Amino acid sequence: VAQPPPDVHPVPTARPAPDDRSGPAAGGAAGEVLAGHLAGLAAEFLRALRGREPGEDEAAGTAALRAAARRIAATAHTYEPLLDPGWAQQLRTELTWLGAVVGREHRHAARLARLTAALHRLAAGRDGTDGSALNQAVGAARAGALLERQLTLARTRAHSATLQALGSARFHAVADAVALLTSDVPLTAAAGRSAGRALPPLATQACRALTDAVGALPLTVAANPYNTHALHASLGEAAGPEAGQDGDPRDLPWHRVRRLVRTCRYALEVPGAAAPPDPDRPPRPDLSACPERLFDAGRVLERHREAAEAAEAAATAARTPRITPATAYALGVLHADQRAEVEAARYAFSTLWRPVAPAPAP
Amino acid sequence: VAQPPPDVHPVPTARPAPDDRSGPAAGGAAGEVLAGHLAGLAAEFLRALRGREPGEDEAAGTAALRAAARRIAATAHTYEPLLDPGWAQQLRTELTWLGAVVGREHRHAARLARLTAALHRLAAGRDGTDGSALNQAVGAARAGALLERQLTLARTRAHSATLQALGSARFHAVADAVALLTSDVPLTAAAGRSAGRALPPLATQACRALTDAVGALPLTVAANPYNTHALHASLGEAAGPEAGQDGDPRDLPWHRVRRLVRTCRYALEVPGAAAPPDPDRPPRPDLSACPERLFDAGRVLERHREAAEAAEAAATAARTPRITPATAYALGVLHADQRAEVEAARYAFSTLWRPVAPAPAP
Repeated sequence: VAQPPPDVHPVPTARPAPDDRSGPAAGGAAGEVLAGHLAGLAAEFLRALRGREPGEDEAAGTAALRAAARRIAATAHTYEPLLDPGWAQQLRTELTWLGAVVGREHRHAARLARLTAALHRLAAGRDGTDGSALNQAVGAARAGALLERQLTLARTRAHSATLQALGSARFHAVADAVALLTSDVPLTAAAGRSAGRALPPLATQACRALTDAVGALPLTVAANPYNTHALHASLGEAAGPEAGQDGDPRDLPWHRVRRLVRTCRYALEVPGAAAPPDPDRPPRPDLSACPERLFDAGRVLERHREAAEAAEAAATAARTPRITPATAYALGVLHADQRAEVEAARYAFSTLWRPVAPAPAP
Repeated sequence: VAQPPPDVHPVPTARPAPDDRSGPAAGGAAGEVLAGHLAGLAAEFLRALRGREPGEDEAAGTAALRAAARRIAATAHTYEPLLDPGWAQQLRTELTWLGAVVGREHRHAARLARLTAALHRLAAGRDGTDGSALNQAVGAARAGALLERQLTLARTRAHSATLQALGSARFHAVADAVALLTSDVPLTAAAGRSAGRALPPLATQACRALTDAVGALPLTVAANPYNTHALHASLGEAAGPEAGQDGDPRDLPWHRVRRLVRTCRYALEVPGAAAPPDPDRPPRPDLSACPERLFDAGRVLERHREAAEAAEAAATAARTPRITPATAYALGVLHADQRAEVEAARYAFSTLWRPVAPAPAP
């Protein structure tokens, strides 16, 4: 059989393949492009669901399920004006519920892995040759055992909750709604406009929400290494029964930016959603114009959240009754270590979120 | 009385005034310049000693005494080839002893002030409205009280030791030796050479020892913010009975550089000791050629040492029997906070110790 010459490319399909989000903008109607993108995401969702079946890598399947659910929900949010509003709202609510439930187990596991690694790093080189070092080594070991007990219990509970959710009528309704997306997306009249006109403004709006939220962050402080802000008041935070879920209130603007980074990134994944560069205007001076750095920023803020949650878990463990002072001391060191990681992630974000191009002189 | 016209300068004295270390190099013999400089330092030493008398600011007097003792010892070290060797060695030993004894009280006071400030920062904003926050607030307060008790006791002991030292025959012998310096410095034959030829090579040698010691520091790691190296193995360090004095062995190269920065700086204070810039050679690519940044580097390494000692004091306090877990937790957070300060000081040093000028291409 003759090989085709190397410069012959395959004929592009009218609808992008599910994994091909970087394809060129379709020339057709916005609704058609959006429906094609959502159909691809829905197929990923269903594939991930099958991936959770016995014999498959359950954790990987769950991660893929969460990712697909997040992408569909974010896309339905950004492009809501092109979609039947009641339907889009309902689907987002249900997918957000699903993502939260099935994500919990992973988060507990990640937290335990992070804290265990940090304890190893903090206790490295201990030799236990004298009483004091031995005492500290015992404290670190007990802190590790305590955290493992508490987070493994939380993880087991989260696992049961996932199984229960995936067996529920509520989940089957979501899965049915997603399955419908592969063939039928309820569009509005506005979806009849050309993709090139209708999609970029909506993506820009999603990314502008990100830019605004970043504008409210204390980036000048964060850009100054060792500012100690993330540890500030670490011994003074109101840490009520909800502490493990809400964490430090000063972390919330960063968590919000993390979600908006994702929304902006997912919005730009729709083919043709990125506005073409306008030669008459300078490039937007932020990351939303630069998908790769946006991905890095999202990773950094993921690390920010994980470290914040790990710090909170160490503080929670230190409130366990009847622990020894050596255990509590190790948990205090661990808490501060993870708050330093929070600060480090903010610093890293501040180095990423830099003007892509300087603003022109007026 | 007629005012002298503004461009008439006072006639320079042959010997620089005690406080005038920035004067031009004396054109005379090296021994003469060195003796003049040492006489000025000896006068400062004696003035500081009078400053410690009743009615004066005792702490300021002690600080001035330490500074003068350090300068004389460092100068006697750097310029030893110009001085009677047995005499210089003996004087240095005695002044080092004196500096260590009278410095201890100040160091305990500085440590307590640093730890108290850090605890305030860490516990800022606590409201104690719920049980957990209250527990943490109590822990922070108890940790503060424990540190205050331990460090105040240490300070009181150091104060007594200072008084005892200053009343001892050993001290009176040092003071007599220093008083002799104001009029008579035992010089060697080499001191007869011209100042411009004899002094700069000795100063350069002292500063080269600094450059070599800095070369052994892990500056590449330190220049990378949030490298977590200073906290590494913080729960694993052998912390024997000498821990409070020796601290973390990995801090020692930094402490050594701190002392060498001072020696280099003091060496350059001798009039004419800084080698004149050689137009045929590029400037030396480090701080030793730049006294102001040398001073900043010294300050940063002072902060490094204070933070390292404060972290050690928190760890020591955590080994007190029968403390509550909340107290131990607060001490753990405090320890890690101060080790982060150690890391911050290393980072700051790495930003200061940068090539003054790039090395020329070969």
